[in-house]
Amino acid sequence: MAILTGPLEPRRRHVPRGILQLRPAFYIASYFGIILSVAMAIPALVDLADGRPTWAVFAVSASGVFGVSVLGVVSLREAVPVFTPRFGFLLTSVLWLTSCVIAAVPFWLSPLPLTPAAAFFEATSGLTTTGATVLSELDAMERSFLLWRAMLQWLGGIGIVAIGLFLFPFLRIGGMQVFRTESSDRADKALPRVVSVTRALCFIYLAISIACALTYSALGMSAFDAVCHAMTTVATGGFSTHDRSFGFFGSPAILWAAVFFMIVGALPFVLYVEFIVRGRFTLWRDWQVRTFLCGILLVVLALTVWLDQTRNIHVADAFTQATFNVVSIVTTTGYASDDYAVWGPFAFGVFFILTFIGGCSGSTTGGIKVYRFIIVFQALRRAFTRLVYPHAMQPLRFGDRIIEQDVFDSVIIYFIAFFLVYGFTILALSLAGQDFITALTGAQTALTNVGPGLGEQIGPAGNFGSLGEFELWLLAFVMLLGRLEIMTVLILFTPIFWRD
Amino acid sequence: MAILTGPLEPRRRHVPRGILQLRPAFYIASYFGIILSVAMAIPALVDLADGRPTWAVFAVSASGVFGVSVLGVVSLREAVPVFTPRFGFLLTSVLWLTSCVIAAVPFWLSPLPLTPAAAFFEATSGLTTTGATVLSELDAMERSFLLWRAMLQWLGGIGIVAIGLFLFPFLRIGGMQVFRTESSDRADKALPRVVSVTRALCFIYLAISIACALTYSALGMSAFDAVCHAMTTVATGGFSTHDRSFGFFGSPAILWAAVFFMIVGALPFVLYVEFIVRGRFTLWRDWQVRTFLCGILLVVLALTVWLDQTRNIHVADAFTQATFNVVSIVTTTGYASDDYAVWGPFAFGVFFILTFIGGCSGSTTGGIKVYRFIIVFQALRRAFTRLVYPHAMQPLRFGDRIIEQDVFDSVIIYFIAFFLVYGFTILALSLAGQDFITALTGAQTALTNVGPGLGEQIGPAGNFGSLGEFELWLLAFVMLLGRLEIMTVLILFTPIFWRD
Repeated sequence: MAILTGPLEPRRRHVPRGILQLRPAFYIASYFGIILSVAMAIPALVDLADGRPTWAVFAVSASGVFGVSVLGVVSLREAVPVFTPRFGFLLTSVLWLTSCVIAAVPFWLSPLPLTPAAAFFEATSGLTTTGATVLSELDAMERSFLLWRAMLQWLGGIGIVAIGLFLFPFLRIGGMQVFRTESSDRADKALPRVVSVTRALCFIYLAISIACALTYSALGMSAFDAVCHAMTTVATGGFSTHDRSFGFFGSPAILWAAVFFMIVGALPFVLYVEFIVRGRFTLWRDWQVRTFLCGILLVVLALTVWLDQTRNIHVADAFTQATFNVVSIVTTTGYASDDYAVWGPFAFGVFFILTFIGGCSGSTTGGIKVYRFIIVFQALRRAFTRLVYPHAMQPLRFGDRIIEQDVFDSVIIYFIAFFLVYGFTILALSLAGQDFITALTGAQTALTNVGPGLGEQIGPAGNFGSLGEFELWLLAFVMLLGRLEIMTVLILFTPIFWRD
Repeated sequence: MAILTGPLEPRRRHVPRGILQLRPAFYIASYFGIILSVAMAIPALVDLADGRPTWAVFAVSASGVFGVSVLGVVSLREAVPVFTPRFGFLLTSVLWLTSCVIAAVPFWLSPLPLTPAAAFFEATSGLTTTGATVLSELDAMERSFLLWRAMLQWLGGIGIVAIGLFLFPFLRIGGMQVFRTESSDRADKALPRVVSVTRALCFIYLAISIACALTYSALGMSAFDAVCHAMTTVATGGFSTHDRSFGFFGSPAILWAAVFFMIVGALPFVLYVEFIVRGRFTLWRDWQVRTFLCGILLVVLALTVWLDQTRNIHVADAFTQATFNVVSIVTTTGYASDDYAVWGPFAFGVFFILTFIGGCSGSTTGGIKVYRFIIVFQALRRAFTRLVYPHAMQPLRFGDRIIEQDVFDSVIIYFIAFFLVYGFTILALSLAGQDFITALTGAQTALTNVGPGLGEQIGPAGNFGSLGEFELWLLAFVMLLGRLEIMTVLILFTPIFWRD
């Protein structure tokens, strides 16, 4: 290497660029640490007001994180490098990982019986808006922890929308390029637009959250429950403040309100931004949105009929329960209003399949997402034509856009990476001694950021607290993989990324 | 339509070409009917020699099928149309479907307690070399039925090798084009070569089968068992003449012999043909073969350690059991030497994943097949490079061949169709009331032509006899889909196929 280095190259180049870029990545992460430490003050204040001694947990965590973060900002100060895809991957992974670690600090310091693995799992489940939990007896818990969990999901939700809008199209990950806007094309030229879009995005996110909290409150939730559930609904996260989740409230009206706001969180936020910035309301004309809503309706109807016919549940009640739980799973929220694991085999199969699906692109949802399914169905349709007419030229279409080869390839790569990680996670969980259903659906629910799995242990009536250390570390990592569209993280494990 | 028809077009063109081509397809199928009816004479003779009255079942079936087939040959006689892909799809599906129906006749007419669905399921499981069975108490059964089941698998095995060698590359199905040889390029020009290759293929298949039977016999099987098991081993089918499958013999030597011949059946037969026709022995240089064998070794070692550590099985015995059952599943044979469902969670997970894999291209195995996994891994590797270096030009490689876009696309389409059919089958089985494990692994084992599923009902210790009519019809259809690389059959359900 040294011999090949030209005379104009500075000597530093001996260290591969990937390693060198760790420093600015951690520099930026330090700013996020400051934001999170400030956020920790809120739960501390809640506990102070409640007169609970756990306010100290958050106070100590906040001071510690603040101190370390300021140290990071000061000591790592450096000109941020040109924003290449390589730096984008590194920065994204470092930001999310450090944020999860920071968010885990209060859990770890708390009197709750949490190992480091469990604390990291809970924090990661929060920020990735997964909603799987190792905690139980939530109803008796200090409000600080309940609020912190909700805040993590809320922050994670806006985080993933922003990344989905600006970063993934730039990184050409998972076919998000198809939604490339002027703002994501050249980051330097479009900066004013990035700022205005971000401002609109934050405004919309806040407005929807407030609307959701007010609705919940009007329908009978306590103010605290309304705020917490609004944050985890809009973020399609799924953390609740009650062990029985939405079953606690026993109110169909609240279930329907949650259905509405979960769907709002699962639609492409870019359409809301367009509405605000340009005044164009194109929601109903969007192909992805229509497919998503029609699909939900179809599944809900099928499940309602099944419940009505086989479970002896009144049809109106069956419709409410089916809608709530189907929307909860398909939007990757993961609330439960009932133990749907006892709804019988068809429901079991439906929820297994639904866990893969996810919501729309650029929403707060996880999962594979509707647009990727639309694209592969288009490809399948074209394949049929080509088998009969080998020379037919037929571009792939997505609404009024044409899917370029580049986009299609990266959608396919997403699927390959998805099922590869899925398979390995199943094997690893099996090797750790988990039963097959837990391994199969635990891997799935972490990778798709849904939350509950199926089966007795991690199903809607169970939780992840009974899993071992290894399983929790693994599943937390898989949640991060799923949240960052897999390839963003996976590429850090390839030699090519670290070579020059 | 009529208005658009030019004056030179004969009036018959009003009927779409797809429909018109049904006649020659059934004409050719009639010849296969004659062959199958002649084959039915063999079990009839065995029962006559045994002095069992069931010889009449086969005699009646043979006469009936012979009569109808001759009628078909006479009445449907017509010039066979130009061999277009469209006719190829139609002919392949019609041939396999009618063969399965014909093969089911003796089961249906037999005194065995079989419904039409069960008879069709058993016959289809035979011809598709799946090996799932609705029958039990095999040890007490007339030898005619045992022989007929073995013969079906043996015929199905050579059938799929021939189709894989000549037809699928021509139809451009599932990426088999990558193995396109001179003989599959232009069917008319290469006819002499097709004949010589076919002759070599039949010779090899017969030779391997005889070698397998002699080995089994030398190791202590009865002559009848040796012949039957040789036929189902080489075809990687999995039907046994005993309820306990290979567990019946209690002989490690027989297990190892079966391992050897299952692997022989799972390698690309084209390499054997090359050896015979050209004297080139390239087996060890083939990338697919090496990946396949190394993969098996890795899994066997992991499973041996697991069995030794957790199940208290002696390491030598664990190695034999692990090897036999891993090879049995990965080659999609489906014999069992033990109820591996009780080997614990890791074994459960491993067998679930292995059921997807399958053997090499152009073998008698089902499953997704190793070369498709190699191709998608290559694509994943290239994707990593492209994410860091967006303008890197890097063709996909498969050994010393370059994977063209066309081949890659059709591999991807295979995966899409596979998981689509898989998902729908799971849902349909769940809807019919099957428990989740049965739905999940029943759909899987049928689509990959493996045989046994997992779980109590259809696992290695159970069988498919307890499933309902609907499930049996569905799974038989799914076996056919899996056997014919899915798209070959699926395309018949698209409107574009039947339009002109």
